Amino acid sequence: MRTLYHLWLSPPCRKVRLVLGEKKLESENHIEPAWERREAFLTMNPAGEVPVMVEPDGAIFCDGTAISEYLDEIHPTPPLNGANAVERAEVRRLVGWFDGKFNREVTGKLVGEKVAKRLMRRGYPNSDAIRAGLSNIRYHLDYIGFLAERRNWLAGDRLSLADLAAAAHISCVDYIGDVPWAHNESAKTWYARIKSRPSFRSILADLVPGLAPVESYTVLDF
Amino acid sequence: MRTLYHLWLSPPCRKVRLVLGEKKLESENHIEPAWERREAFLTMNPAGEVPVMVEPDGAIFCDGTAISEYLDEIHPTPPLNGANAVERAEVRRLVGWFDGKFNREVTGKLVGEKVAKRLMRRGYPNSDAIRAGLSNIRYHLDYIGFLAERRNWLAGDRLSLADLAAAAHISCVDYIGDVPWAHNESAKTWYARIKSRPSFRSILADLVPGLAPVESYTVLDF
Repeated sequence: MRTLYHLWLSPPCRKVRLVLGEKKLESENHIEPAWERREAFLTMNPAGEVPVMVEPDGAIFCDGTAISEYLDEIHPTPPLNGANAVERAEVRRLVGWFDGKFNREVTGKLVGEKVAKRLMRRGYPNSDAIRAGLSNIRYHLDYIGFLAERRNWLAGDRLSLADLAAAAHISCVDYIGDVPWAHNESAKTWYARIKSRPSFRSILADLVPGLAPVESYTVLDF
Repeated sequence: MRTLYHLWLSPPCRKVRLVLGEKKLESENHIEPAWERREAFLTMNPAGEVPVMVEPDGAIFCDGTAISEYLDEIHPTPPLNGANAVERAEVRRLVGWFDGKFNREVTGKLVGEKVAKRLMRRGYPNSDAIRAGLSNIRYHLDYIGFLAERRNWLAGDRLSLADLAAAAHISCVDYIGDVPWAHNESAKTWYARIKSRPSFRSILADLVPGLAPVESYTVLDF
């Protein structure tokens, strides 16, 4: 059996879980509190970060993007990358947008401040950062809406790693109720479509100890 | 002619320049002070970030990783990714290490504090961050040394995007003289090998206005 070491509200972990779900690949998921720096975990991934995936033959894979690209290469159905080099560049540009820019400007400032600091018992939320995150997310929702109005999915005709990366981040922020859905109807429609996919069920079932999600988190018609 | 919009001491830009150099692809390079948010530049890349590459046919590519993977796909000689899915996962794991972990723990804390803040005229260097960066880089040099002692190049037998991503970051930190080369001989030997490649020449010729590199920056026998 495939094993996935992951954490709640970790966008790279959620991205891998969504890839596994879309491809109907099974995995046994273990919560790994990476900040505890468990020795056997550091042996698997010296970066000390989740996700880490161990394949049935014992091969170890680390890094959300590396794992996602790997899974898409060896389990090509359904394809989650572009059909040619130009389309793949567009998928990867958007994956970079969400895992880079969105993560810095939104996820880190909201989930990082409100949840991660608490889980790791490292200081108190920074209210300036939270304020910035709440402002930044509107601009990002507008960009998602802009793309969703022009394309079937964010990177083009078909669902791709770009949608999964975006949804991985958005869903973490949505857990704490910080996505102002009324701000952009097209972004909301895109998220409603992806949220209703079977691959999303395990994401919606996540429960962070001591922090229940807001009520609308699991509602498909939010 | 291909055009590359880039910035000095930007690791993702340097990664793309190294890929272009290794593949002997020409480009006309323009400095883009991304923080000025030039309108025509934002039209090309709404993320407002460098690098942006415009191909001779006018096609626009953004994001250092997306561009590097694209160039490697359409110009496969020499190959800069792994030869199969498992090897590519290892290359991408290390690209993620340097563009993610190393960037957060080292480049951002040293080049970000000492140079980027000055160029953008945004506040003063944070001495706690600089101290942390100077401490963190030792651990990363040890990891580079660890890999370099066991493999011909960081991700395996051949030079790959992993080496170029690592060298892109290291070279930025080396520009300001913050790499303690005496700390790990194997890491130094790896960097000396990559620094002497023809693809590195344009990187070593970079000159940030008002900030000359330390003397050893351009020396191949440092």
